[in-house]
Parts: sequence; C-alpha cells; structure tokens
Amino acid sequence: MSKEKLDEYLAQIKKLDADAMEKAQARLDSLVKPPGSLGKLEDIAVQLAGIGGGMFYSAEKRCVIIMSSDNGVVEEGVASAPQAVTYAQTINFTRGITGVAAIAKQFDTDLRVVDVGVNADINHPQIKNRKIRKSTYNIAKQNAMTYDEAVRSILTGIEEAEKAVGDGYKLLGAGEMGIGNTTTSAAVLCALTGISAEAAAGKGAGLKEEAYMHKIEVIKTALKNNRPDLSDPIDVLAKVGGFDIAAMAGVYIGGAYMKVPVVIDGFISMVAALAAYKINPVVKEYMIASHASFEQGFVHAAQALGLEPCLGLHMRLGEGSGCPIMFAVIDAACAVMRDMGTFEQANIGSDYLNEMKDGDNFTV
Amino acid sequence: MSKEKLDEYLAQIKKLDADAMEKAQARLDSLVKPPGSLGKLEDIAVQLAGIGGGMFYSAEKRCVIIMSSDNGVVEEGVASAPQAVTYAQTINFTRGITGVAAIAKQFDTDLRVVDVGVNADINHPQIKNRKIRKSTYNIAKQNAMTYDEAVRSILTGIEEAEKAVGDGYKLLGAGEMGIGNTTTSAAVLCALTGISAEAAAGKGAGLKEEAYMHKIEVIKTALKNNRPDLSDPIDVLAKVGGFDIAAMAGVYIGGAYMKVPVVIDGFISMVAALAAYKINPVVKEYMIASHASFEQGFVHAAQALGLEPCLGLHMRLGEGSGCPIMFAVIDAACAVMRDMGTFEQANIGSDYLNEMKDGDNFTV
Repeated sequence: MSKEKLDEYLAQIKKLDADAMEKAQARLDSLVKPPGSLGKLEDIAVQLAGIGGGMFYSAEKRCVIIMSSDNGVVEEGVASAPQAVTYAQTINFTRGITGVAAIAKQFDTDLRVVDVGVNADINHPQIKNRKIRKSTYNIAKQNAMTYDEAVRSILTGIEEAEKAVGDGYKLLGAGEMGIGNTTTSAAVLCALTGISAEAAAGKGAGLKEEAYMHKIEVIKTALKNNRPDLSDPIDVLAKVGGFDIAAMAGVYIGGAYMKVPVVIDGFISMVAALAAYKINPVVKEYMIASHASFEQGFVHAAQALGLEPCLGLHMRLGEGSGCPIMFAVIDAACAVMRDMGTFEQANIGSDYLNEMKDGDNFTV
Repeated sequence: MSKEKLDEYLAQIKKLDADAMEKAQARLDSLVKPPGSLGKLEDIAVQLAGIGGGMFYSAEKRCVIIMSSDNGVVEEGVASAPQAVTYAQTINFTRGITGVAAIAKQFDTDLRVVDVGVNADINHPQIKNRKIRKSTYNIAKQNAMTYDEAVRSILTGIEEAEKAVGDGYKLLGAGEMGIGNTTTSAAVLCALTGISAEAAAGKGAGLKEEAYMHKIEVIKTALKNNRPDLSDPIDVLAKVGGFDIAAMAGVYIGGAYMKVPVVIDGFISMVAALAAYKINPVVKEYMIASHASFEQGFVHAAQALGLEPCLGLHMRLGEGSGCPIMFAVIDAACAVMRDMGTFEQANIGSDYLNEMKDGDNFTV
C-alpha cells in the first residue's frame, strides 16, 4: 500500500515548463552583459523559471529539512564519534549552535528537524517525530531495513517536503545527522554505480588509516552479504542504506512533486539525490548542487548524477550546512533576473550584441 | 615624488596578527564539528582574525571599488564591444542596473565608482573623478602610460581604499570597467609570469575565432615592442597595462595598508592582484579569491598568485560582480565563528574529539 502511494507521487512529477524557460533565457539575453557571461547564475535563473512557471522566482522563504537517524553499522567501529552524538546534535539543531544552524541564521533560512530513526526517545516541540524505528540494523550483518520501511522512509521525506511547501517555503535544502552515515552512503553509492568501496568511502569526520581500511572492508561485506538489486534503488536503500538517506531521497522527490527547487548539500545528501534520480530521473530537474564536499565519494556521486557544484569550500560537515550558502547564490541569480537593466535601458545600442552572440561559445 | 609616497605606503604594510590567528584557530577547534570540517570557512575566519587582530570580524559594511578606464589598444579591434560602452556602463553602475549593481544590492554592498581614465568627460555626483588621463595609449604601438602615471594610478587605488576604510568599510572588493582590458590584462600576465599569449588571452565578451587569433598577435606585438621589465611590476603595468589594472593593484595595497580584506573578482581583478603581490608579497595575506572566472587566463593568474577561488560559477562579466557573492561566503565564515557552540555547550564529551583530531589530515 505504501508502494502504491509512492508510485502515485512519482507519476505526478512533471518536467519543467519549457515555455517559461525560453522566455527567461530571452530576458537574460536582453540584459546589459555579454550573453551567457553570468554563467551558472543564468542557468539557475532559467531553471527557477522552469520550476515556477514564470519569469521571476521568489526564494526568500526557505528551509533546510534535516533527517536525523542512527545506523546499526556503527557497532563495527566505522565512525570516529559515538552514536550518542546523533541525538545530541539533533537537539542542538533546535538550539541554533550547530554548523548548519549558525549558517542558516545568517541567510534567513529555517531548519525543520525530523527524527526518522534516532536511537533514543525524543519528545521535543521543535523536532518532528516521524521515527520509522530506532536505528537501522547493522548492514555488515543483515539488511538495514525492510523494503516496506524504505518505502515509508521515502514517503516520510515526500510528506515533509509537501508540508514545508504548504507552509510557504519556496526553496528547500536536504540535510542530515546520523553517526555512521558516510558508511551507509558509500555502500549505497557502490550499489547504485558499481564503483569500488575504495573509491566510495572517505574518512568521514576523521578516521585514522587503520579504521578507514576497516570501513572499506565493512562496506564490501555489506554489499556481498546483502546483495542489493542494482536495478531497484529502493532495494539498495533498504539493504545497505539508512532511514536518513531514504527520507532525503523523499525530500527531493517531494520537492519535484510540489514544484520547488531542492538544494543538495554534501556527500550523503548527494547520494540521496542520486537515489532519487534513479527512482525517477525527472526529479533531477528540480535539484541544485551546492558545494563540492571534501568527503572522497562525493565527486563520484556528483558525476553519476551529472551535476556540478557551484561552491568549492573543502567542507565535509554535512547537516545541510552547505545549503544556506547556496541559497545566497540563488538569491544572486534571482537578483540578476529581477534588477539588471536591458541594453535599451542601459543606453547601449544592441548593434554589437549580435557580434558577441555569434562569438565562440563558452559552454563547457 | 609619487614613487616615494608609494614606497612609504608599501613600507608600512604589516603581516597578519599571528597571535589572533592562533586564538581563532583554537576557538574553531573547540566548536561542535570535526576539526577542519568547515574547510575554507575556517581558513577565512582565521585570516579575518589575523587582519582585524581579534577573534571576531565585522564585515557588514562593505563595498566594491570599481575602477573605470579606457584602453588605446581597442583601435586594434581586440574587443567585441565599442569603447563607448566603458562610459555608458560607468554611468549605469550608479543607476543600479549593471550586473555588479544588481548583485551588490542583494548582498548589502555599496559601489564606489572611480573614473581613472574613461575616454569621455564625466561630471557625475556619484562618480569620483580621479582621471589620470583620457584612455591609455595603444600598447601595440607604444607604452600604455609613463612610469609616473603608473605610480599615480596605483596611488589612486591606495587612496580610494584608504578613504573607503575611513568611511567605515571593513571589507572591500576590486572591480573594473574598461573595454579592451582583457587584452591589457593578458599582456600584463604574460610579462609577470612568462606564460604565452595563447595561454593568457581569452575571448573576452565573446570574440570570434579570427578576432581572437588577432588579439593574441596584438599581445605578442605589445610585449615585443614595449619590452616590459619582468623584474619591475610597475614597469609592466606602465608598458602594457591600463589605469584600471594599476589602480586596482592599488586597492589591494591600500586594503593591506589599512588592514581590511580585499576580495578579488575575475580575470582583470586577479591580474591586478598578482601585480600587487609582485610589488609587495605581504599584500597577498589580505586578499580573498572569490570565483573562478571563465576567461581563459584566469587560472594561470590564480596559480601564479597561489590563491584558489571558492566559487565556480562560470562567470566572465567582470565589473566586480563576483565580489558581493563572496561577501556572503565571508558572512558565513563570520557566522560560524560567532554563533556556533562549543562541544561543551553542545553537551558532547570531547573524548572523541582527540580521535578526530589525530585522524588523517584532510588538508590538500
């Protein structure tokens, strides 16, 4: 039944509005600058037009949806921090003292914290209780969750995105908290793309070499024992993923369903985006990559998804901490579309515009 | 006399406050995140501490100083836009309709427009008249300017930075407007680094292949005929540069002299930064690179200076348009330093912190 509900959502996702995008591009080309010279700001402005169905997009009300959950695989010693940190940081998001909280406040961004599987009882007015279960199972020994639990995790993400848009948010980011989730994300990335555990796994918060080698072995064991079905991304999420990754995939799907852009954060967020794309490729049209995470597997996930980040900040914190900074870049794109003048308004003849338009293309 | 005045400024530039930087790093390491996991945001926070001499830096009042000037070399047909566009856009900055103006407004950034050599009479209350002369000479045929004019251009930039800081600005950006200045910048880059004209020259606003090949030849001719002295960056600026590039170099020097950070924009801004660094290497400590310009020579200039940009937006507009976006990234760095909690405040034992600190280093 959950699966039918998910399929209903998926069937209703529509491609971007090509007519609005064409009109947006025409306006950008009329603005007083060499055509294309604002690069990705122009790409984003066109994408937002396609998402919103009009020339201008208002992204002032925005939030990061943070999916918090624990991972059974931590008992293998793959994380440098203890599991209790998931709980502590989930609370700390509401206190405004985590990395994403400090950065979000700077950029007028709200946090919506969702407990999808923290291994502790949480009863907090600012934390949504959408717990699937307390912690996944240890993927080195068994499937992380059942197929139905994976579907319910995805639906949870969709519903949270749906509610956020219902509350007026026009721009979403997908963040997470879950000790051990660079291990599960690496396993999901391997299963979705076929790359090696060595390529997919990074050192997370700061593993020593020996622990890192062990993490790679754990990922290999998880893939070997659970045999995820590469042709079914939901099966992959169920067998070697986590409630957080699956729920984040749901946020991307829900954003596309509700026609709002969703910004990708770092490694875990990018792997979840890749899973969402594999579930329904049209969802990608609503995604915006933010920064190039320094966690090793990120670049492979981004390449598999075919999205290039806009920020290179060597960040590897997670939490959704890169999203609010990207919201500022999106603000710049909106400002260009809204506030720049045309060649005519700028008192510059457009005679030479054709010269530049016919010039050699800068597209990579 | 001008040269003596410049030397006086240069002699007073001091290295960053190492003690303040050490304290800033210690605070960053006490905040609730894996050490170093906020990457360049942490680097910037430490740099700002070193510049300001204290833990926290207030960058709320900021501006882009735009140096407008014309270049005699446009008569060689190296630009796709007519010279009159320099004048028109210089006026348009004050009307808020250019790219940098739209973006600056979004990020609470003021513009300070300075005419250092526009080839027209400008009498405008919002444009500072610091004209060295109307347009440089054509570098394909003679030196762009005299050595004394180059020194005066640099001093003009220093004085404008000094005035801006006097007016309360704590964060500067270096922008420009000058049709033909990707040609002069490429020539300066060749002279400062020894790279080829083919590597240094890009297609500017959008040259066709034939015009681009011609631009390369013009740069080669300029270097051959003027014989800039590679050991004297001021001689290089005088012989193949422009009033805008020299004045921007002055803005970097002036920022360092006044102890405020200066953000680098695109290709021309980066070449000017390289010239300033060659004049006095300590100036680099006050510089912050913003985006990776799509103009071909940018990467060579950035490598020669040894600074890596934070934004990859495929922009190639100039004007200082990348600076305000970088100001937002700097805001994020300030927010992290100011608003994040410590491990203690976050109710997380620091037992595992040492584990992460001893973990393998992520530094590139």
